[in-house]
Amino acid sequence: MATWFTEKQTENFGITAKVKRSLHKERTDFQDLEMLETEEWGNMLVLDDMVMTTEKDEFVYHEMLAHVPLFTHPSPKKVLVVGGGDGGVIREVLKHESVEKAVLVEIDGKVIEYSKQYLPAISGALEDPRVDVQVDDGFMHIAKSKREYDVIMVDSTEPVGPAVSLFSKGFYEGIAKALKEDGILVAQTDNPWFKSELVRQVHADVKETFPITKVYTANIPTYPSGLWTFTMGSKIYHPQRIPVERFTNIKTKYYTSELHNACFALPKFVKEIIE
Amino acid sequence: MATWFTEKQTENFGITAKVKRSLHKERTDFQDLEMLETEEWGNMLVLDDMVMTTEKDEFVYHEMLAHVPLFTHPSPKKVLVVGGGDGGVIREVLKHESVEKAVLVEIDGKVIEYSKQYLPAISGALEDPRVDVQVDDGFMHIAKSKREYDVIMVDSTEPVGPAVSLFSKGFYEGIAKALKEDGILVAQTDNPWFKSELVRQVHADVKETFPITKVYTANIPTYPSGLWTFTMGSKIYHPQRIPVERFTNIKTKYYTSELHNACFALPKFVKEIIE
Repeated sequence: MATWFTEKQTENFGITAKVKRSLHKERTDFQDLEMLETEEWGNMLVLDDMVMTTEKDEFVYHEMLAHVPLFTHPSPKKVLVVGGGDGGVIREVLKHESVEKAVLVEIDGKVIEYSKQYLPAISGALEDPRVDVQVDDGFMHIAKSKREYDVIMVDSTEPVGPAVSLFSKGFYEGIAKALKEDGILVAQTDNPWFKSELVRQVHADVKETFPITKVYTANIPTYPSGLWTFTMGSKIYHPQRIPVERFTNIKTKYYTSELHNACFALPKFVKEIIE
Repeated sequence: MATWFTEKQTENFGITAKVKRSLHKERTDFQDLEMLETEEWGNMLVLDDMVMTTEKDEFVYHEMLAHVPLFTHPSPKKVLVVGGGDGGVIREVLKHESVEKAVLVEIDGKVIEYSKQYLPAISGALEDPRVDVQVDDGFMHIAKSKREYDVIMVDSTEPVGPAVSLFSKGFYEGIAKALKEDGILVAQTDNPWFKSELVRQVHADVKETFPITKVYTANIPTYPSGLWTFTMGSKIYHPQRIPVERFTNIKTKYYTSELHNACFALPKFVKEIIE
């Protein structure tokens, strides 16, 4: 008998993936965690019944969360990733030679532990000497940071469970204070098909806090609707006015310098959500 | 008991949608046809167990198939749609005032019949006096057309069943002959995640036939992987070198003139498929 994992992305729609076996399953202090070995997507991290990342399509999300802000900043040295315990964003951050220190603040140590065990190609970079891994509350870490970071990336789960506070206006205001005077925030902000109100609200909140606010998208097959949004708040640098010479050659599978600009061209209905 | 329709987009992955009821189901001369009323997507046309179109997300596919070539051509007057019996592409074609005649050649009259009955917002344009609906074999129609059309759009199903011949090199060569000397072809060409060899092959075939060959993408939530490709073959006009004044104001929900250019910026792994 074949086992299938089904994520109900809405009450009435979902994706379903054939499972070879469950590699690990537990209730952590924060959420239900399961690591599945799937036929189509390789190993898959599932939190609270939602796909967080898979070996096959993880590069899209991780590259697009990291490289768009990092190439927007002329010389990012100190970077913070809130969430992202799988290590995928950190792996991409370290491709930028200017980065001297990358801090990861993940609230759930179990995500880190099982990503290291079952997602080595994603989590391997967590061992890099430039990386400081902290198992801690991202909201609290932000609250006590002042003018420290060049770029802060919010790689959170959906706004349920431990991530609720990571979608609040107070959090974005805290991030603005934790950033240097030319810093950049980027956050994953769900999809416009099923979560238009969330996309609208986050954009409005970031816009009240940052002089430059832009939304961009990427296609992620295992995420709801496949059309994912990222919201950027920037104090000085405009992501679409980057000198060509800044695009150094890094190895990617999704991101290109051409896409860096193109990803800000939003479908009309998405523009209408945030206008 | 709730009924769910599941499309296996690959052997090991699929989408699943809650069904209110089946509105119609039959084996036509060419394929299995079912019209479902779904909770999430409204009415949904399913052919051979594959989602063809839904009321909620149909605008993406129809707009992107139609407007990218139609704005690339300076004055499209006579347009052919091969397949597309639901009428969605025709609806978009008619938004262009230069169009004097739009011919639809759909092999399966049942698709037209049940689209008219259950997808009125999509199929309504088929009644327009500028439209000539022909229930016929698209391959044969192309074979007997010479220098007739400004733009030909291939709105086919996947390359199984009646659509196999619509993915052959001979078909694209026929289209080149059926087009005027400055004509443009565009075809839906599936997704790069699960069908990379198809994307590669069609691009190679079109490139041998047309001086300018370009692939562009759109996000369609109910199609496999959500990342859909369209392949354009053009005799003279380059789709990314359009005078701004050509973008007349038409009502859309996905397409914008900014996206017209941005949609050609391909993810790196897609570029690598066609290079």
